[in-house]
Amino acid sequence: MARIVQKFGGTSVADIARIKAVAATVKRELDEGHQVCVVLSAMAGVTDQLVGYAANAGGAHYSPEFDSVLATGEQVTVGLLALCLQEMGIPSRSWLGWQIPIRTDGVHGRARIEAIETEALEQSFADGEVPVVAGFQGIGPDGRITTLGRGGSDTSAVAVAAALGAERCDIYTDVDGVFTADPRIVANARKLDKITYEEMLEMASLGAKVLQTRAVEMAMKTGQRLHVRTSYSDAPGTLVVDEDEIVEQEIVSGIAYNRDEAKITLVRVADRPGIAAAIFGPLAEASINVDMIVQNVSADGKATDLTFTVAKADLDRAVKTVEARKDDLGFTDLLADPNVVKVSVIGVGMRSHAGVAQRMFETLGEKGINILVISTSEIKVSVLIAEEYTELALRALHTAYGLDAE
Amino acid sequence: MARIVQKFGGTSVADIARIKAVAATVKRELDEGHQVCVVLSAMAGVTDQLVGYAANAGGAHYSPEFDSVLATGEQVTVGLLALCLQEMGIPSRSWLGWQIPIRTDGVHGRARIEAIETEALEQSFADGEVPVVAGFQGIGPDGRITTLGRGGSDTSAVAVAAALGAERCDIYTDVDGVFTADPRIVANARKLDKITYEEMLEMASLGAKVLQTRAVEMAMKTGQRLHVRTSYSDAPGTLVVDEDEIVEQEIVSGIAYNRDEAKITLVRVADRPGIAAAIFGPLAEASINVDMIVQNVSADGKATDLTFTVAKADLDRAVKTVEARKDDLGFTDLLADPNVVKVSVIGVGMRSHAGVAQRMFETLGEKGINILVISTSEIKVSVLIAEEYTELALRALHTAYGLDAE
Repeated sequence: MARIVQKFGGTSVADIARIKAVAATVKRELDEGHQVCVVLSAMAGVTDQLVGYAANAGGAHYSPEFDSVLATGEQVTVGLLALCLQEMGIPSRSWLGWQIPIRTDGVHGRARIEAIETEALEQSFADGEVPVVAGFQGIGPDGRITTLGRGGSDTSAVAVAAALGAERCDIYTDVDGVFTADPRIVANARKLDKITYEEMLEMASLGAKVLQTRAVEMAMKTGQRLHVRTSYSDAPGTLVVDEDEIVEQEIVSGIAYNRDEAKITLVRVADRPGIAAAIFGPLAEASINVDMIVQNVSADGKATDLTFTVAKADLDRAVKTVEARKDDLGFTDLLADPNVVKVSVIGVGMRSHAGVAQRMFETLGEKGINILVISTSEIKVSVLIAEEYTELALRALHTAYGLDAE
Repeated sequence: MARIVQKFGGTSVADIARIKAVAATVKRELDEGHQVCVVLSAMAGVTDQLVGYAANAGGAHYSPEFDSVLATGEQVTVGLLALCLQEMGIPSRSWLGWQIPIRTDGVHGRARIEAIETEALEQSFADGEVPVVAGFQGIGPDGRITTLGRGGSDTSAVAVAAALGAERCDIYTDVDGVFTADPRIVANARKLDKITYEEMLEMASLGAKVLQTRAVEMAMKTGQRLHVRTSYSDAPGTLVVDEDEIVEQEIVSGIAYNRDEAKITLVRVADRPGIAAAIFGPLAEASINVDMIVQNVSADGKATDLTFTVAKADLDRAVKTVEARKDDLGFTDLLADPNVVKVSVIGVGMRSHAGVAQRMFETLGEKGINILVISTSEIKVSVLIAEEYTELALRALHTAYGLDAE
């Protein structure tokens, strides 16, 4: 008998028919003799509706009232799943964040889980119940409801699984697992049986929206095994595990891309000490995250070109913030380009293999794709290219690294 | 400075525009220097939607999960009103049943309030906030959410007002107050300035759906003054108060009617001791409430006719229950008639005045209306008549008792 935490997202609980399908999935694991705890999101679309109400009421997004309103979405789905399970003769009860309790730091709209008291959930197991936990919510030190931010239900699931010492945390989604590349673009992409936390983290932060970054981070920290799988069948998905668990590690596990970035180039910025701080300080103050940064060596010792990327949604604000300091920074021109894509080759195997980046550059060069910016980490090589080459680059790289399905 | 509890129903909080209008009403009382606590229902239609979900999930109506799902409706509106007030610069916070806490007996779907701890709400007042309390909900001894049953928000408001020692509990509705008769039927019905708890109770239980019966009972028990008023203007409505507060008491305060009853007549029931218990025992076991009962003196000492009324919705079940015992009861025929209406003349003044019932019988007789059943109490005379005479009877009685507006 294993203890399993199952997490279902908004599309999996979008209506009563789907919630009944979730109940059937729960039953399948129970029939195998396992102990199951379920974590749910709100019905698809409901959170957006509640956010709309709150916005019309004049609500700042990060406030106690906003959280209290938003948390109702999960309160509805957990109650309904418990009812469906009871209807099938399976004892079950719902658990809200404040009932368990799931204690958070009290920061509204993006709270962090600090502790989960397991006594009540253990008692629920002992009573033969399937506990159904409301994701996305907790309670702050002042007794008010807090929410964890978008996608917080993944984080709830991992935290509950870790607290309960679950053998597996199954994340049910509408895809079959984690792929070597986006199957909508790369037709012969392969589903990965296993992937490391580090690789998953890079995938998630690069826009492969299967799992929330925070949830993966928490799983890595607590060593919680994740299983990303489809809610449409009982086919195995992708296990997200520690590096030690993967015996034969591929050099490259997958090719990811992110269309959400935009590029800004400052032409002939004054080349003097402290210039980077003068540019990026104001951006940080405006809460604009900068991702890739490239600065060339100055040819004449006086001025240089500097390129960086920000989220597309922040582009206008970033341009205004930098231009407001044009006199101080002394650049001659600012070039903003939203039509770019970041393509990344990811694999823990590249730690011990040279030539991974080189193959990427060669492959793109052969296809006539110009690389605008390069950035590397221990397990990832990312390049910024013109958006129109996205499909061409992904397919070429997928083949070049031997990832194509046979 | 007075302390006032304001209660707004579902139509008053049906969308953000209406919730903003509620906020303006709150502000009006604050500007008068009063201290205000608000109690809200869910948005009109939302509770029905949630009930529909739970029913489709296979949920028994009276269960912990059902209550947990249902309670989200008020959680949304109180959060949104607090946001609207904050947006107007008025400090405010929402309070859920479990946060106050409002302690109930734990009976799901129709819980009774046992105690309201006022410490948190008093602190909220002391902090200069407008506390916005979720109606209809509380918390049971086991820490689970309980709801008070349909219309429970009125009860919540009265209980909160009594606990806080509020000078007034304003019940905002979509009518101007309590009338001498239904203005949709009796064109020259008058709005009453004051009415006693007892009279209001009779009105409420007779289908004048301005206030929930339980709320009036609680107000009477605690001596809480109620003010039934329209949410569309600041015009005064009807005060519901103790008899002592009404100096010049009319003999009759109003004419009420109820179309929700149906009549069953058992022809030639065996006239023997214990026959009533044999009929009404099985009905009570089937949770069917019997209202009016009339049994004639038996002419031959062997058999008699017996007539009683039940709720229209229970008619089929009542007929089946009684017919199943036909052999034992020995009646020759069962006549069921849903096309009846109960018309009642109500007034505490009739305690000290004779002839009130007589005038009713005369008036109906003059109009050729046949009385099927009569029932009386200290402050009420009710008759059952054919439904088609409803309008005629109400108008004639309204005039006969001198209630017409000048």
